Amino acid sequence: MKPINIALIGLGTVGCGVYQTLHIHRQRLEKLVGAPINISTIIIENPDKHQKISAKTNITTDVNTVLNNPEIDVVFEAIVGKEPAFSLLRRCIQAKKHVITSNKEMFAIHGQELKRLATQYNVQIGYDATTAGGIPIIQTIQQLLKANQIQYVQAILNGTTNFILSAMREKNITFSTALDEAQNWGYAEADPENDIEGFDAYYKLMILSDLIFEKQPDLKYVKRIGIRDITEDSLQGLQTEGKRVKHIAKIGYDATGNLTASVEPEAVSKEHPLYAVEGVNNAIHIKGDIVGDLTFTGPGAGSFPTASAMIEDFCILFKKEQAAIAGAPV
Amino acid sequence: MKPINIALIGLGTVGCGVYQTLHIHRQRLEKLVGAPINISTIIIENPDKHQKISAKTNITTDVNTVLNNPEIDVVFEAIVGKEPAFSLLRRCIQAKKHVITSNKEMFAIHGQELKRLATQYNVQIGYDATTAGGIPIIQTIQQLLKANQIQYVQAILNGTTNFILSAMREKNITFSTALDEAQNWGYAEADPENDIEGFDAYYKLMILSDLIFEKQPDLKYVKRIGIRDITEDSLQGLQTEGKRVKHIAKIGYDATGNLTASVEPEAVSKEHPLYAVEGVNNAIHIKGDIVGDLTFTGPGAGSFPTASAMIEDFCILFKKEQAAIAGAPV
Repeated sequence: MKPINIALIGLGTVGCGVYQTLHIHRQRLEKLVGAPINISTIIIENPDKHQKISAKTNITTDVNTVLNNPEIDVVFEAIVGKEPAFSLLRRCIQAKKHVITSNKEMFAIHGQELKRLATQYNVQIGYDATTAGGIPIIQTIQQLLKANQIQYVQAILNGTTNFILSAMREKNITFSTALDEAQNWGYAEADPENDIEGFDAYYKLMILSDLIFEKQPDLKYVKRIGIRDITEDSLQGLQTEGKRVKHIAKIGYDATGNLTASVEPEAVSKEHPLYAVEGVNNAIHIKGDIVGDLTFTGPGAGSFPTASAMIEDFCILFKKEQAAIAGAPV
Repeated sequence: MKPINIALIGLGTVGCGVYQTLHIHRQRLEKLVGAPINISTIIIENPDKHQKISAKTNITTDVNTVLNNPEIDVVFEAIVGKEPAFSLLRRCIQAKKHVITSNKEMFAIHGQELKRLATQYNVQIGYDATTAGGIPIIQTIQQLLKANQIQYVQAILNGTTNFILSAMREKNITFSTALDEAQNWGYAEADPENDIEGFDAYYKLMILSDLIFEKQPDLKYVKRIGIRDITEDSLQGLQTEGKRVKHIAKIGYDATGNLTASVEPEAVSKEHPLYAVEGVNNAIHIKGDIVGDLTFTGPGAGSFPTASAMIEDFCILFKKEQAAIAGAPV
């Protein structure tokens, strides 16, 4: 039987998680997708750095190896930043390969174009890993809540800021001590700007916006405030009033019909659906017009949770492929 | 274009929710399933009681009207109790109709047989509404977490007992006062036995068990304890230790390899994923072997949340039908 041939771009935290998960759970996954799985090619900047890869896998810096290989069915992209990710994925789609990405910044900005391109070239894009890590929020909205119109979203989409705010309140420590702690635990980057200023949450919110509302808000309706200026004293004061500060990303239509978005710290009381979300967890609260309020909580980052989202996308994609071939219900 | 013809069994809280939702959102739903939707027939015990039904819908007590009508594609079953629901659905499946049920007691006991029968007759069964109301937990496990092996579940599957325990603790009232309050709000039945003794949660747990572990535990590995003997004093005492009592349904393999289940009150501290679930909400916490811990929270009962689950099942089902016909990816 023809194997499914995979290319993997990037072998950092997420890429390694994907590589290891595909190996550890190979048998289960092959049963699910109904074909042997082969990691054909890995594209990385420095091939010499990675010695623990199977000898059967081609390790290269040259993306043409993937583009010119008609046997490669799907590309997992697990790098960061807009470029070269966008250009690479665009070329992969044009070469008629399915793509699965975990790259939030790239997808927030270029997702609409990649989706259009995928439709044009009749391939699929999986992007559940871009938003809220292991929580299957993209597929839930895409597949399981189609009858519901989602009226708004409010979410904790960045585990780093949630960890810092939880630590500051619980241990009565300063922002910078809490940030140090997050960095020591590996929850924050050496340059934490992207997280603590709310850019990371903003990217994920824009991906949700495009999925739910089929557009992104005009920049004048977007507010983004980081958590750097929050003091441990203010958190303690709010705590005595029964409140916690959460860094909340919101999107929905305002009363005048404008799609508005914000990422900002908010003091919430215990009735709030995000009040109890602590530490590095993410949570998404949505209101569907039939079902009402639903909240999804889980790991927002990390090697295996993010790999899980990519591999679930992979299983859904190849289950669809086969149903399309067989003409069978999925 | 040929419409999708629906039969509805039962016009209580859930049946009315389904009927109204199909009417209110007809346009959106027809666009989703790609065909006109027609509520062809409603089966109820007392047809004279319901005057607000469209004149185009046939209201009858006779299920043969549905079984002998080859135009009916799908049957929504929204009654309670094992019989006549099981016998009716069995006959519907044998008449080659898809079925969508919200009947937890019936499905906990006869779900395995109905699933086998559906495979045999090449029809689909939707049962997301049986478990945790509007939370799409069945479809999430069935479709979105296939790559993950779920290691265990712990859940609040009954909104009535959760409401009572929340009210007793928050207001320092007795069990019987809290039960009265739940009944006044319409959250508890006149005969609340099924909820407060844990049978309702047990049924839902057995449905999850069959879905996740492909079997149900031997009765000797099942423990079921209700909440009737819990006192407000004990809840206050635990609260001073930072703990809350939740009526938790659990299932998973024990150390000796036996599938064990329990529904019982448990004192949990604030780190527990179900600690913050209050009032009539339900929540399901699962551990996937790749993704880790995920928690899904939302309305566990009620007319529209339950109707939402049934109608989402309906949309998934007819999207599959059409993909199978067209041979197209879904």
